[in-house]
Amino acid sequence: MADFTFAELTPTAFLRRSATVHAERDAVVDGDLRLTYRELYDRCRRLTGVLAGLGVEPGDRVAVLATNSHVLLEMHHAVPMRGAVLVPLNIRLSLEELTYVVEHSGSTVLVSGEEHAEAAAEVARRTGVRHLGAGPDGDYERLLAAAEPAEVACADERGLLGINYTSGTTGRPKGVMTHHRGAYLQSLSLLVHGRMDASTAYLWTVPMFHCNGWCLTWGVTAVGGLHVCLRKIDPERIWTLLRDEGVTHFSAAPTVLTMIADAEAAASPPLERRVAVQTGGSPPSPTLLARMDRLGMDVTHLYGLTETFGPIGINEEQPHWADLDAEALAAVKARQGVANVIAEPLRVVDLDGVDVPADGATPGEIVARGNDVMLGYYRDEEATAAVDLGGWFRTGDLAVMHPDGWIEITDRAKDVIITGGENVASVEVERVIDAHPDVVESAVVGRPDERWGEVPVAFVTLREGRELTAEQVADHVRAHLAGFKVPRVVHFRTLPKTSTGKIQKQVLRRHAGDAGDRADPGAGG
Amino acid sequence: MADFTFAELTPTAFLRRSATVHAERDAVVDGDLRLTYRELYDRCRRLTGVLAGLGVEPGDRVAVLATNSHVLLEMHHAVPMRGAVLVPLNIRLSLEELTYVVEHSGSTVLVSGEEHAEAAAEVARRTGVRHLGAGPDGDYERLLAAAEPAEVACADERGLLGINYTSGTTGRPKGVMTHHRGAYLQSLSLLVHGRMDASTAYLWTVPMFHCNGWCLTWGVTAVGGLHVCLRKIDPERIWTLLRDEGVTHFSAAPTVLTMIADAEAAASPPLERRVAVQTGGSPPSPTLLARMDRLGMDVTHLYGLTETFGPIGINEEQPHWADLDAEALAAVKARQGVANVIAEPLRVVDLDGVDVPADGATPGEIVARGNDVMLGYYRDEEATAAVDLGGWFRTGDLAVMHPDGWIEITDRAKDVIITGGENVASVEVERVIDAHPDVVESAVVGRPDERWGEVPVAFVTLREGRELTAEQVADHVRAHLAGFKVPRVVHFRTLPKTSTGKIQKQVLRRHAGDAGDRADPGAGG
Repeated sequence: MADFTFAELTPTAFLRRSATVHAERDAVVDGDLRLTYRELYDRCRRLTGVLAGLGVEPGDRVAVLATNSHVLLEMHHAVPMRGAVLVPLNIRLSLEELTYVVEHSGSTVLVSGEEHAEAAAEVARRTGVRHLGAGPDGDYERLLAAAEPAEVACADERGLLGINYTSGTTGRPKGVMTHHRGAYLQSLSLLVHGRMDASTAYLWTVPMFHCNGWCLTWGVTAVGGLHVCLRKIDPERIWTLLRDEGVTHFSAAPTVLTMIADAEAAASPPLERRVAVQTGGSPPSPTLLARMDRLGMDVTHLYGLTETFGPIGINEEQPHWADLDAEALAAVKARQGVANVIAEPLRVVDLDGVDVPADGATPGEIVARGNDVMLGYYRDEEATAAVDLGGWFRTGDLAVMHPDGWIEITDRAKDVIITGGENVASVEVERVIDAHPDVVESAVVGRPDERWGEVPVAFVTLREGRELTAEQVADHVRAHLAGFKVPRVVHFRTLPKTSTGKIQKQVLRRHAGDAGDRADPGAGG
Repeated sequence: MADFTFAELTPTAFLRRSATVHAERDAVVDGDLRLTYRELYDRCRRLTGVLAGLGVEPGDRVAVLATNSHVLLEMHHAVPMRGAVLVPLNIRLSLEELTYVVEHSGSTVLVSGEEHAEAAAEVARRTGVRHLGAGPDGDYERLLAAAEPAEVACADERGLLGINYTSGTTGRPKGVMTHHRGAYLQSLSLLVHGRMDASTAYLWTVPMFHCNGWCLTWGVTAVGGLHVCLRKIDPERIWTLLRDEGVTHFSAAPTVLTMIADAEAAASPPLERRVAVQTGGSPPSPTLLARMDRLGMDVTHLYGLTETFGPIGINEEQPHWADLDAEALAAVKARQGVANVIAEPLRVVDLDGVDVPADGATPGEIVARGNDVMLGYYRDEEATAAVDLGGWFRTGDLAVMHPDGWIEITDRAKDVIITGGENVASVEVERVIDAHPDVVESAVVGRPDERWGEVPVAFVTLREGRELTAEQVADHVRAHLAGFKVPRVVHFRTLPKTSTGKIQKQVLRRHAGDAGDRADPGAGG
């Protein structure tokens, strides 16, 4: 075999290419800042030098705490270009959680966007990592201007690219290890399914720190598209950008789509071109699909997890759907669909790993394998083993397999609440509440919510003779966890249990909508 | 590393996926035959069983002699699904050449389309391979109907997928070894650049036996597009298919585009949608580009070789080209461009492998490396070593590197004539002429031709006292080589040489347009 027949698959190749092919095209718009691909590449190359100057060697972990901005995008390219491992932090985590993630990942440097300099400084103080801040008070731009590139070629496409912490399952966040090969292929997959090209203007409504923005941090870069940064979810601002930047694509959870549709600016003028919208987290409702259509937006429903580099499944529109009425159409569009073009086929299996009948009725768990599945959980062999079912990754999602090979989620196997696109592990909130000296035990479940999809509701049993208000419970949780994990309503009562002493959460879920004590009317935004 | 994080990259995955996702969509139209993706997959699975029944084991070579048809498409999927190696034969080769390729590849089975049953039977008789013919007189359909699948999973993505024989350089055809990983990635690349999706209808104007149809045999399949078969280049038929099948994409050499533009049917009615056209082999002229535009076709210029899975370079349209006048626009569109999205950057180097200055003036040779470069030449280590320049594949194309990183071919380093999209190695034709008992020596060069791009012209020195007509020379060549290799004009004369005795081909090229003896006015079509 000749030497010329192989190159490691790494998403860093995409920016290098676009720096030549799309040199003078706009790569990023972030408020008043505009960068061409030539400039973006130059900055990322210099950033590798800045990282090297801070002692970052290949294989080292580098954390970043930033909202959707040029800083977070640059880190997605520069950290792997340095051969290092990117640890994007969820800006909604509490200081305690951030500290845990930085320590657990063994990060040596923490880079922050201007909005998060203070929090990052505190985390750096607690953990002892080096802190580099962007914005007026930070050194980011100054060091960048002076740096020489210190790039390192990707040595192994199956090597560690990043660690994305997720609270998707139980308790403490777990570090999902992504790899270069997976991110590369997933980028191409998103491009193919999204029909993106150099005329694409992608609005960053999903956080880049979630699954690396479904790999579109690299994918949009690969075709020379425009990254339109959105530093926070502001529906009026979204409409301004949709119109002024000629946005062609964006991605958002159904709750965010509802906000966009509800915005005053949605009324007029109509968009000049139709916009491709990718949604996930929960299925879009018939009402929402109809509203989006009227607003000039074509919604595609995707399915994925942090463990699968974002969307591994896609609800691909079918020709015969043209004959369906609105309700039937919404029903098929609610399905999670089929594996994307670079994914191995998704399966639905029973506890022994045997495929359930494709009858649209027999429940099983969705399992996945292939190039867009994580390497495992960082420094957690036990958790990795727990999701490995004979070489297939257990998603924890209960679903049925329809006769045509399409998957539909029927329930979540794991005790997870999805609120505003964020996963909340019930057990994590319960542990915090249970740690309160006045509490005997607690249970947290999700309650359907028109705006957020679900919100957390707590059922709490107090120690005899003790008293707590719902607000006190909420304050206690907020002291330890991100705001979106704080229960909105607290019911003080004894918990229903099975004969073996297991809390009957299904009973509590039926009561989750009952009037309880409102704890935190404003949180979660 | 968990087990669930890897799958071999193989283009056979695409048909398997489309059999589920696009089950009821049309996959192929070939005359009166229409197959859905479910049917195509079913047939290809059965074809693996047919091959197994003929003794084909994983790793065995299977040759196919067929025009663009469902048979040739099915072979592209079924042979690798059997784990075997596809050897697509150029239907324009002579019996002698076909025999050589079948023997050199060590093929054990030869499958033929209905138009080529007779030739295939003769090759089978000469070589002793088993012959399976499609069409009324063959067993293809009968065996298919009765067969059970005998699929084999891809064991190594870098393993041998096919051997594509090319006469691109010197003498005997060389067997370009392709691999699964390269075909998989190149398929995705063509999809991204072509913006293809399930609504794509791809007209098969380029032969599938050339570079496996630029990997679109697999790529169009991956998105659930429609393969519109075209069994021979017939411009009137092309227009019928463009209109009746709603063709969205096709690929063709400039010579074929000229024929399409010249066709009577081009006049009216206008096409309902614009068609994306990919061209290569030689740069499209300004006149041609303007004509295609008026016909509703957007032409993209690609650059590639059989050794690079087809198009490794793409002339990607740039925003600032909007300001250019027609002549300047044609000049930039004539460039071979930049590496495609999955390719490593193309380089232009001197004889020592050092990059020439990016000044648009200094000539060098284009070299390539990466996942879309062949494994090497089959059973020819010497030829493989000859194109390996320190881990870079030598394309043999002389080019300059422009300051913006774009490549433009200025000449071909190898002595190749490109006629009607086919490569002719001068030396191969010279050897045949030289073997004639009345000939002392000969030289063959290309002469520019409006229709064919180039045509071969021979300069022949006869033995003293002997006489030959141009037609006799042509007949002699036709007895051994494909029709398109036959010289159209013969000049009987002594050959100009350097002081070291080397034939001065550049002198002959200047005289190639001179009136000589017309040898073969009708050949080459």
